[in-house]
Amino acid sequence: MEHFVTRRQVEFADTDSGGVVHFSRYLIFMETAEHQFLASRGIDVDTRIQGKRVSWPRVSARCSYSRPLVFGDQIQIEVTVVRCGRTSMTYAFVLRRGDEEVACGEMTSVCCVIEPDGRFTAIPIPEELSVRLDGGGSGS
Amino acid sequence: MEHFVTRRQVEFADTDSGGVVHFSRYLIFMETAEHQFLASRGIDVDTRIQGKRVSWPRVSARCSYSRPLVFGDQIQIEVTVVRCGRTSMTYAFVLRRGDEEVACGEMTSVCCVIEPDGRFTAIPIPEELSVRLDGGGSGS
Amino acid sequence: MEHFVTRRQVEFADTDSGGVVHFSRYLIFMETAEHQFLASRGIDVDTRIQGKRVSWPRVSARCSYSRPLVFGDQIQIEVTVVRCGRTSMTYAFVLRRGDEEVACGEMTSVCCVIEPDGRFTAIPIPEELSVRLDGGGSGS
Amino acid sequence: MEHFVTRRQVEFADTDSGGVVHFSRYLIFMETAEHQFLASRGIDVDTRIQGKRVSWPRVSARCSYSRPLVFGDQIQIEVTVVRCGRTSMTYAFVLRRGDEEVACGEMTSVCCVIEPDGRFTAIPIPEELSVRLDGGGSGS
Repeated sequence: MEHFVTRRQVEFADTDSGGVVHFSRYLIFMETAEHQFLASRGIDVDTRIQGKRVSWPRVSARCSYSRPLVFGDQIQIEVTVVRCGRTSMTYAFVLRRGDEEVACGEMTSVCCVIEPDGRFTAIPIPEELSVRLDGGGSGS
Repeated sequence: MEHFVTRRQVEFADTDSGGVVHFSRYLIFMETAEHQFLASRGIDVDTRIQGKRVSWPRVSARCSYSRPLVFGDQIQIEVTVVRCGRTSMTYAFVLRRGDEEVACGEMTSVCCVIEPDGRFTAIPIPEELSVRLDGGGSGS
Repeated sequence: MEHFVTRRQVEFADTDSGGVVHFSRYLIFMETAEHQFLASRGIDVDTRIQGKRVSWPRVSARCSYSRPLVFGDQIQIEVTVVRCGRTSMTYAFVLRRGDEEVACGEMTSVCCVIEPDGRFTAIPIPEELSVRLDGGGSGS
Repeated sequence: MEHFVTRRQVEFADTDSGGVVHFSRYLIFMETAEHQFLASRGIDVDTRIQGKRVSWPRVSARCSYSRPLVFGDQIQIEVTVVRCGRTSMTYAFVLRRGDEEVACGEMTSVCCVIEPDGRFTAIPIPEELSVRLDGGGSGS
């Protein structure tokens, strides 16, 4: 599968008083890259199925940091689908500044509908989505 | 080693339009718990060594999410030192709402000084800190 | 009306690479103080009226900053109801570190229900709330 | 003076469980627009004068919200210099979604150097900056 790459610039509010980007912000960088990847496939993450809103709560997220980022840095974020299961998706991310890798990470989300009381119920990834993701796979 | 436990309440700004706490916020919950643990040992994370500011940039962070948290939830965060190496520390965290585990995670940080130009240089954890952490260990 | 005062400690993630608390964070400090004030009056901001969720979107917010705050600072936040109108509330806030005022601000919110399609409709503040707020007043 | 306009898209992490963009995020939208405006004039906000880092702490910020923003919204942010004083700058901002104004705000910052101990000292806006800002003006 070919890679999807998006760009963003570090904002002042991304930084902390250590002088660098706060480590929690990388998860947001990865999430927005995921959403841009999905949009590039014609998938709207904020959709409805049978009148219920679909959401993709995280099961796990991790990030390894190799070089600090500072205010103003231009970064590229590469998104790869590692696994498209029956109800869950796993993505890998590589963050680069120029040619230099600065961080990498992975996130797994479960496809859910939001019930009227706010609770999440896992559902199989709708076929109209999995087709667009080149998905298939098996398991949960 | 005995556990350190701290408490916090979910704020409105912690949530996202999925109706639950945004997954990136858990890293901040864990970081603040880490700082409170260190303060409980008499360790100020914003300290200076030979005139240079000490910082603890992250090498890695991960979190597994088992139950969503919502606005107003009271949570307990348990902090454990998994490993105190020569230059790095690894902590484990368990987040609970009442008796229910809602998430767990792990973070590794490296002890650094911030050079005048803003760069980080890894240094051995100062003995006055490692003593208070019951540290010792070996390796990096 | 007597003042309501709450406390919080500046977290590392509140800061930016200027070395101080990012100016947007003060709005979150004020919001959480507002919610704690309301809870102290027995008011749950995340409530339902006739099956619809109530929300209090902001009409305006402002803050004046007189002294920077840094990581670890202990602050007190004083909340005062400036005006309780027919559909809106205005609060004033003073932030102090010890005896020193560091910032002050004001926020106005409108009482709304969230329609099934996500839109907000302004409603008169329910009497069960306005009674607990010592409200009354007139106008919008 | 002509207007500067920049664009951004609402990210998922900008939203809260009211289903809309959290009101504190607008200050970050405005700040980043300010920095992009300054960059368009060849001004780097993270600069040094006589070896000391320059910073622009906020004196005041305010925002009025007329329409909620939701995840995925494309917004334009218009930046205008309202006043360029001797040591301070005031900007006005208008946020639009298509032709619709959704919010407006104003921010005042003071030009400071960061002293070695982290304290801010206000300084006259350096002429090389004020020239690029078409500045002049008088007063503080």
